[in-house]
Amino acid sequence: MSGVPDSHLEAEIAEQPEVVGHLVDALQPRVGRLRSWLAGRRVTHIVLAARGSSDNVARYGQYLLAIRARLTVGLATPSVQTRYGVTPRMDGALVVGVSQSGRSPDVVGVLEAARSQGRPTVAITNALDSPLAAAADEVLHLDAGEERSVAATKTYTASLVAMAMLGLALGDEPTGTERDELAALPALMERTLNATRAGSAEALVGAATLVVTGRGLNLATAHEGALKIRELTGMRTEAFSPPDLLHGPVAAVAAGDPVLLVAPAEPSIEDQRQLAPTLRERGARLAVISGDRDLLDTADIAFALPEQPAPWLTPVTAVLPAQLVAAEMARARGLDLDRPVGLRKVTETR
Amino acid sequence: MSGVPDSHLEAEIAEQPEVVGHLVDALQPRVGRLRSWLAGRRVTHIVLAARGSSDNVARYGQYLLAIRARLTVGLATPSVQTRYGVTPRMDGALVVGVSQSGRSPDVVGVLEAARSQGRPTVAITNALDSPLAAAADEVLHLDAGEERSVAATKTYTASLVAMAMLGLALGDEPTGTERDELAALPALMERTLNATRAGSAEALVGAATLVVTGRGLNLATAHEGALKIRELTGMRTEAFSPPDLLHGPVAAVAAGDPVLLVAPAEPSIEDQRQLAPTLRERGARLAVISGDRDLLDTADIAFALPEQPAPWLTPVTAVLPAQLVAAEMARARGLDLDRPVGLRKVTETR
Repeated sequence: MSGVPDSHLEAEIAEQPEVVGHLVDALQPRVGRLRSWLAGRRVTHIVLAARGSSDNVARYGQYLLAIRARLTVGLATPSVQTRYGVTPRMDGALVVGVSQSGRSPDVVGVLEAARSQGRPTVAITNALDSPLAAAADEVLHLDAGEERSVAATKTYTASLVAMAMLGLALGDEPTGTERDELAALPALMERTLNATRAGSAEALVGAATLVVTGRGLNLATAHEGALKIRELTGMRTEAFSPPDLLHGPVAAVAAGDPVLLVAPAEPSIEDQRQLAPTLRERGARLAVISGDRDLLDTADIAFALPEQPAPWLTPVTAVLPAQLVAAEMARARGLDLDRPVGLRKVTETR
Repeated sequence: MSGVPDSHLEAEIAEQPEVVGHLVDALQPRVGRLRSWLAGRRVTHIVLAARGSSDNVARYGQYLLAIRARLTVGLATPSVQTRYGVTPRMDGALVVGVSQSGRSPDVVGVLEAARSQGRPTVAITNALDSPLAAAADEVLHLDAGEERSVAATKTYTASLVAMAMLGLALGDEPTGTERDELAALPALMERTLNATRAGSAEALVGAATLVVTGRGLNLATAHEGALKIRELTGMRTEAFSPPDLLHGPVAAVAAGDPVLLVAPAEPSIEDQRQLAPTLRERGARLAVISGDRDLLDTADIAFALPEQPAPWLTPVTAVLPAQLVAAEMARARGLDLDRPVGLRKVTETR
């Protein structure tokens, strides 16, 4: 898509390669220190706490950290504390909070509880002076600049990258290849943004609902794509992993319904290849974000990914076409891209 | 609702009090032995593995076990193993698999991995001769009889009760009050089924979409209600906790859209009380499952719960009106209640 952006949202989408490049440079030198610190803390499992778009960062972390650290990773349930008055023991846990504003009280509460039990805590946030940063032993500061659009874009991809770099501080010593793969991200993001042609979302604009599928590392991308389109357009969207879709919700996919398959080059693409014929049989219209020729050829609406990053980093580029589609659909519907109806930037849920 | 059921689904909905009564009697004597066994295993956190309706049982377990055992509880991510070839270390974990058929290969895989690491494993299943039961140290057998309808009802509530009883084997010694609360369930379920009047779902039949909200212990009920209505009617339904809804998806709730609030008598009812005015402002039509006079009075469609169980057991009765609504809507739409379009009883996802 081209031209001078005339919304904060579009400007922030375009800023992402630069923000990520800056972040990778800033965090690379800290990975070694984080490793030593975590190695001394006898971590047996990981707990992630987040809300909203950050919850999708946590979904990525749930797979990425499990794969890299070879540990189980769970998502926190803040209401156990805030509604039922029980603070779970976190023996053995590394506790990670993700919040761009750092002001989500329930996420802060989980980190404070962990810290009071002497467990190691990490914050991924865009606000160094936030309560979340104050509650953390280590802060991975996104330094993405102010996000003026209500819908998160640059803080989302930056948070993914911060999570990926936290992954390098766990499990095996990071390799030179992994460091190179991180360093290659900004250029690949730029190419992906440029490859998504304006007008490609046209076929989706009139749809009433949209199902988005993704699995494993890219379950996060499916959820974030669905959330972004919903936030910006008011369209009803939903995200599922292919197995969860097949376990029931597929019953609601009718002839003509659009389904968006997020299928970048990583092992879970296999599930999308298996899912596509089932959706076809039901008469669904297939939209596909992928670099895979066969999947793109079978699609009614194809978002072709150019050169892709290493599998563990695919969520960072695969979400970009979804962001652009959301913006384009909102514009086509005549909506305000920076202030979606009914949304606030910080929602102080407990 | 009344009359002789002429579908397996309706018969199985009606059977639930009896199934649960039988299960409580069968498991009560085993709680003590389970406690001793678990006490010897040095459990520091819990991992739950499930799919489909059973995933909603796991959602209940995530809160119930965290509250009772005062431990963190995470949901397993089977694709870490099946797609990325990594078996996470589960040091300190109790691993619980939930599957009525016991034949979900990804759930079985998580239990087998835990067992090979010497971790304690528990299966909640309706099939004693299943691979899941074979992979577990302890099997909580639902003994609910064959479930002939594709949509799970009696195995869902029975699995909730088995999960609740597993909770009694963790944390503080169970009290006589807790045992009495379990024993009271069948009668309260019967009363709840009788209190849901035929025709009460009429106002929802024509809706195209439905959002269902619930939090904490009853996030599971919201998800299961949404899944049941979707499976049986093909209607597009979604479940959210009130904070997650407010963090973005609320943008898609438009004037006239129905929202079903699951608000039985437990602490998370507070979130529903706070959510209702926001939904009203957006012009949503409120349907409410609750025993709370104020919430019911504010509702456009009221499903009044009669006498309710103790807070920890509210999901067992609160789901019943949702099951009846799903069945009634399917019937009104002229659909086959026992064989929803596009669904199979066992989906062998890996």
